Amino acid sequence: MKKGQNGQNNTEHLKIIPLGGLGLIGMNITAFEYKDSIIVVDCGLAFPEDDMLGIDLVIPDITYLKENAQKVKGFVFTHGHEDHIGAISYILKDLNVPLYATKLTMGLIERKLEENDQMKTTRRKVVKQGQSINLGDFRVEFIRTNHSIADAVALAIYSPAGVVVHTGDFKVDYTPVFGDAIDLQRFAELGKKGVLALMCDSTNAERPGFTASERTVGRTFDHLFSENVTHRIIVATFASNVDRVQQIINSAYKYGRKVVIEGRSMVSVISTASELGYINIPDNTLIDIDEMKNYPDEKMVLITTGSQGESMAALSRIAANMHKKITIHPNDVVIFSSNPIPGNEKAVSKVINELSAKGANVVFQDTHVSGHACQEDIKLIYSLVKPKFAIPVHGEYRHMKAQAKLAEELGIQKDHILMLKAGDVLELSEDSAAVTGQVQTGSILVDGLGVGDVGNIVLRDRQHLAEDGIVIAVLTLEKYSGQILAGPDIVSRGFVYVRESEDLMDEARMVVEDCLDYCGSHHITDWAKMKNSIRDSLGDFLWKRTKRRPMILPIIMEVAY
Amino acid sequence: MKKGQNGQNNTEHLKIIPLGGLGLIGMNITAFEYKDSIIVVDCGLAFPEDDMLGIDLVIPDITYLKENAQKVKGFVFTHGHEDHIGAISYILKDLNVPLYATKLTMGLIERKLEENDQMKTTRRKVVKQGQSINLGDFRVEFIRTNHSIADAVALAIYSPAGVVVHTGDFKVDYTPVFGDAIDLQRFAELGKKGVLALMCDSTNAERPGFTASERTVGRTFDHLFSENVTHRIIVATFASNVDRVQQIINSAYKYGRKVVIEGRSMVSVISTASELGYINIPDNTLIDIDEMKNYPDEKMVLITTGSQGESMAALSRIAANMHKKITIHPNDVVIFSSNPIPGNEKAVSKVINELSAKGANVVFQDTHVSGHACQEDIKLIYSLVKPKFAIPVHGEYRHMKAQAKLAEELGIQKDHILMLKAGDVLELSEDSAAVTGQVQTGSILVDGLGVGDVGNIVLRDRQHLAEDGIVIAVLTLEKYSGQILAGPDIVSRGFVYVRESEDLMDEARMVVEDCLDYCGSHHITDWAKMKNSIRDSLGDFLWKRTKRRPMILPIIMEVAY
Repeated sequence: MKKGQNGQNNTEHLKIIPLGGLGLIGMNITAFEYKDSIIVVDCGLAFPEDDMLGIDLVIPDITYLKENAQKVKGFVFTHGHEDHIGAISYILKDLNVPLYATKLTMGLIERKLEENDQMKTTRRKVVKQGQSINLGDFRVEFIRTNHSIADAVALAIYSPAGVVVHTGDFKVDYTPVFGDAIDLQRFAELGKKGVLALMCDSTNAERPGFTASERTVGRTFDHLFSENVTHRIIVATFASNVDRVQQIINSAYKYGRKVVIEGRSMVSVISTASELGYINIPDNTLIDIDEMKNYPDEKMVLITTGSQGESMAALSRIAANMHKKITIHPNDVVIFSSNPIPGNEKAVSKVINELSAKGANVVFQDTHVSGHACQEDIKLIYSLVKPKFAIPVHGEYRHMKAQAKLAEELGIQKDHILMLKAGDVLELSEDSAAVTGQVQTGSILVDGLGVGDVGNIVLRDRQHLAEDGIVIAVLTLEKYSGQILAGPDIVSRGFVYVRESEDLMDEARMVVEDCLDYCGSHHITDWAKMKNSIRDSLGDFLWKRTKRRPMILPIIMEVAY
Repeated sequence: MKKGQNGQNNTEHLKIIPLGGLGLIGMNITAFEYKDSIIVVDCGLAFPEDDMLGIDLVIPDITYLKENAQKVKGFVFTHGHEDHIGAISYILKDLNVPLYATKLTMGLIERKLEENDQMKTTRRKVVKQGQSINLGDFRVEFIRTNHSIADAVALAIYSPAGVVVHTGDFKVDYTPVFGDAIDLQRFAELGKKGVLALMCDSTNAERPGFTASERTVGRTFDHLFSENVTHRIIVATFASNVDRVQQIINSAYKYGRKVVIEGRSMVSVISTASELGYINIPDNTLIDIDEMKNYPDEKMVLITTGSQGESMAALSRIAANMHKKITIHPNDVVIFSSNPIPGNEKAVSKVINELSAKGANVVFQDTHVSGHACQEDIKLIYSLVKPKFAIPVHGEYRHMKAQAKLAEELGIQKDHILMLKAGDVLELSEDSAAVTGQVQTGSILVDGLGVGDVGNIVLRDRQHLAEDGIVIAVLTLEKYSGQILAGPDIVSRGFVYVRESEDLMDEARMVVEDCLDYCGSHHITDWAKMKNSIRDSLGDFLWKRTKRRPMILPIIMEVAY
């Protein structure tokens, strides 16, 4: 496979181009290009950073793929999480190419296609773990792995320039809840034959040791259920963690409890997983939320979204007494089966405080295991695959750097470890690897129906408004004489509580009047200059008086007599 | 001391009134009241919550103290952190009473008084660890403890109704860097004599085990310095952690390095600590930042603020290439000697990513110990003090609840464990404790020079503006005829990028015109009604077209011909 396949000249390079914010932002999308073939691994969205005010989500800029649309043979997916599949409906509008994924992953993709009326227009093929597909000059093998969602795969990407193994998000779970353990033998076999490059998940590369099996959480649940036989049990976890939900249901069934699933995204994922056979719910176990009242506390388990403290998720609404059907009482045990994702710690703590204050016993120890490989697992994969080049992927820069250190410790030459950033074009051949160029990439902000209509200027304005509000100075001028017919009026929002600051507002009006007098006596009639003058003098006045810098917006209207 | 002191009738109750957000917000201020005497423990500020947009800091509402000003005998302070002393300058403006604190704590308080020109007008007394003072019906004993700042004390508060022990923030450090270990014997002695109530630090009550000694971090520094002899070393830590800075300086001196201290707050705290003898800096060790260029990397240590990723702190500016005098290069080792405070994780990660991307080796393992007691330490204090009543303090509700569980495990009756919230009036007598009332409390928001002029309406407006921006519809009417003389004009900020949304803005203008036509033909001339009509129709239009809800602000001006 590596040399002279199809009589081609294998001095041609394989290009690897991360198109999402590989590193800082979790928007996973990577192009592999060889001659006239491009395949794309994953097509994820990112959630907005703290400074992206009002933004709903972020999708990748795929200009490079659009410019090379005729080359793109298809998208292949490693698993069904939003940061790997979430942008596909947006991207398909610009680039209609076939999709390849395992059954559960495809099921989750199809929910998006249905919502966007793209089912009929989108070619797609379900691939089994272990199977391979040909896409132009590439062959892609789907290798079984474990992760916090079933049907995850690593990819062996065969090109005439060599084989690249891409792990996707993965962990090594010898005793998974659903399906079989990661196919370590296949990784070994590929390594034995020779792997050009390994692109390995870095998320937990700072954490020593091994990642525990999903099954260990099941034992914790059993223990908690046996300890709390007289209590109502509420468990919050990630909507997409089907295996976790399976284990909660297993414990519920064992202890004779009924189960309610609450939270739109969880209901949706579990129904897809159930239809496709990825979760096994015993008959008469699942009940509707409206039936809860027919069962005593000790017969109920509620599985819910909101484990990250998301303000609109079910658990947050329950904790804040804003849920129509569920109220917390002191007989509740609330289990957080999750760790806070960095950035969510405060929101999670807020929910825990609210639940505690209502008397619930909140449990969050030993109730979660990660879906990502820790240091020893990463070392295992490197030792099986023995790649010539290492390209850490997934996680923040610090995590990729931590994997780079591990790779070096494992004997990979320092200049064979490649830290890529979005848009880098890495050219790989049998014995060389170098970033040779850059393609356009970026984050496209989605706000409501708008895709890309909120850019840096709008965001900067939102930040300014958020910080100190807005003060508007509005006036009406006579067109020919420049005489002031109405105003100046001062209107503010988000600046000070006006009823208690009437003096300040009166003075502000006088500052603008003085400014207009000055303009008049100096024959300044150009609106732009007048507005600048108002902005400066009013801004200075308010800064001196309040040490704040609200946005100053002068509006001039004109009437012709 | 407990019975019939001064011949008084001891059926009189002791009142304990938390005035800051005891629990959810870290604004520490608690009133103790007995007959005509009130003393106040600490006077802290809080940093704004995420939804307090643009707010600089939060101080407590002391209406209750102002209403009882003649009773207030003084403020006593447990240690010099901002959440315990930070509001004092604001509060002194309304309530000029004497201050009592240990030397370092008073030194830090005096920096605030100097900035606010309050030195001459404020009575204050430095108290030694172990000393007692009389304040009205109270006697207050300052008991030596350990914390992440020197000169911390617990307080034994003697009243005719009994003794209350308040730990302040504390840890048990048998081998502190400065001064002596916590005076456990005194806690035991008090316990032996009989303690009515224990108010104990809950911050780490969820963490099992013991808190490690500050000295263990010194050993880590020595190890890191010996491992990185050819590198420049940069250490970020809390500005107020004098002992930590001492240990970094110790390692620097041992390894023959010069030290630069960078960051306004750290320079200030260290200079106060140095003047008062709380830090020992060998001669010729500290150099000015401008002298750095005269020393090679391996002779330098930079100690800096910014360990929490605060955007304007020195380390963040260094990481972002925005510092005038320091640039990161691949020979740098950057040590984070701190853990992220909940809520700061993402900001810290951003700085770590930026430093890593510039080639620095970032170290954050075993480089910090907490300043708060863990579960076993808390149990130790309870076992020495053996209080009749337990009142968990400090930390969030979840942490106080965790301490309540510990207290119960230690045999304190459940109804003797009291979870107070801000404003609760707890009445304590020798054999009873009950919340008998509420006083006014709250958070006063400080924004620039404004104290309390930003309230819920302003904050809600800022949140609205931050989310979707503002759309202003402005027009000028003729006063008597109601005829439109100018406009309607549409102006927006933070909504959409206007140059690419001209059509939308044109249509918005037409929507307002239609609305005005409707008002005209229906003889609606009342401005409030017209504005509501504009707000509704424009809001609906924009929601339909964009699925966003910007703030809609109609402005009507009037001209009389």
